[in-house]
Amino acid sequence: MIMESGRKLAVVFDAYGTLFDVHSVAALAETLFPGDGPELSRVWRAKHLEYSFLRTIGEQYVDFRVVAESALQYSAEKLALPLTAGARSRLMNAYFNLAPFPESLAVLQAIRKMGADLAILSNGTSEMLRKLISNAGMEGLFTHVLSADAVKKYKPDPRVYELACKAFKRPAGQIIFVSSNGWDTSGAAWYGFKTFWVNRQSVPPERLDVMPGGAGTTLEDLLDYLR
Amino acid sequence: MIMESGRKLAVVFDAYGTLFDVHSVAALAETLFPGDGPELSRVWRAKHLEYSFLRTIGEQYVDFRVVAESALQYSAEKLALPLTAGARSRLMNAYFNLAPFPESLAVLQAIRKMGADLAILSNGTSEMLRKLISNAGMEGLFTHVLSADAVKKYKPDPRVYELACKAFKRPAGQIIFVSSNGWDTSGAAWYGFKTFWVNRQSVPPERLDVMPGGAGTTLEDLLDYLR
Repeated sequence: MIMESGRKLAVVFDAYGTLFDVHSVAALAETLFPGDGPELSRVWRAKHLEYSFLRTIGEQYVDFRVVAESALQYSAEKLALPLTAGARSRLMNAYFNLAPFPESLAVLQAIRKMGADLAILSNGTSEMLRKLISNAGMEGLFTHVLSADAVKKYKPDPRVYELACKAFKRPAGQIIFVSSNGWDTSGAAWYGFKTFWVNRQSVPPERLDVMPGGAGTTLEDLLDYLR
Repeated sequence: MIMESGRKLAVVFDAYGTLFDVHSVAALAETLFPGDGPELSRVWRAKHLEYSFLRTIGEQYVDFRVVAESALQYSAEKLALPLTAGARSRLMNAYFNLAPFPESLAVLQAIRKMGADLAILSNGTSEMLRKLISNAGMEGLFTHVLSADAVKKYKPDPRVYELACKAFKRPAGQIIFVSSNGWDTSGAAWYGFKTFWVNRQSVPPERLDVMPGGAGTTLEDLLDYLR
């Protein structure tokens, strides 16, 4: 797949929630805390994001793994769930081994076949991303695996998105950025990427002055958009 | 009240949720959307904060009034509530005229009597703050009314907290910052203020590496802390 610029298309993916299912920890959470699994998973994810935002604004970066663990501790306290060291360890382990969405691998392979270059650009650390990629059998699919940890800021900080431009040596307008998080596609659009929003939860578009270039409900809709 | 430094104590207050009750719009919301008022109020407030974080990180500042209105529109869509122009206007008007908490005025007056200097440091615009202060009969109580709008960033950006140091011409360690928002007292503590957390909702402390210097459930507990 060749762009007007004569270069190969570059498609950059968010990881958490986009290629990998962050709520796949909900099943374990439900086993540990019957009746409260989905809510713990939901509160944890929201708190994890909030802490990443706060630490970026307040210039208090710690890596995504540390943020995840502190958000889990807060969330359990908030819901008055007794989080033993063992339960915490099991939930963190589940988070490090998130399942990909059912269609993720096939869609990535199909886009590669179209002749595009692929990358991941994520808030997760390189170590976290390597593990997810390996578990999902996605080795060799990505030209670049980029972590916000390289700049010690989280998305939507422009310095994080800039990592993709530097890696592919091309301007933002020649990169397609794919995320299931509306705030992330908004941040990417602010930065200048072309964007595709995988609206898995069928929520309204964010009211942040920009709209995604394309949208769908699973990654399969991205294939139609690219064709 | 004189500090060890020989200077008057400076006490700086957050406005929304701390001196003024952001959920006092819930009553109007309930009239407009019976059964959904509290949830609309809750989602709106959370979205308002999230948008302020995202716009600060993404360098896309618009003022707090605009952020409030876009967050309201998103929240109504999310909850599938038909937000007419009339309803939107009434809710925004309620937001511009939030009621103070029952104890706010008396506590501020008591702290002034102790001989301290008071200030507000808020994400709201100067115009929004003036209106709240005027409605609540709080004119003349504050030495400074400081808005994040002056630096086009939102809390917990250090440049916002810095406004208080500049206004009072003193280092952060000689200022007490009071907020009901755990993330705000955390940001203030990161910056170096002494902090007091009005934990009105009795939620757990944020897991952000810092703890407030003091805590209580209403502003009246701040009086005990200061004495």
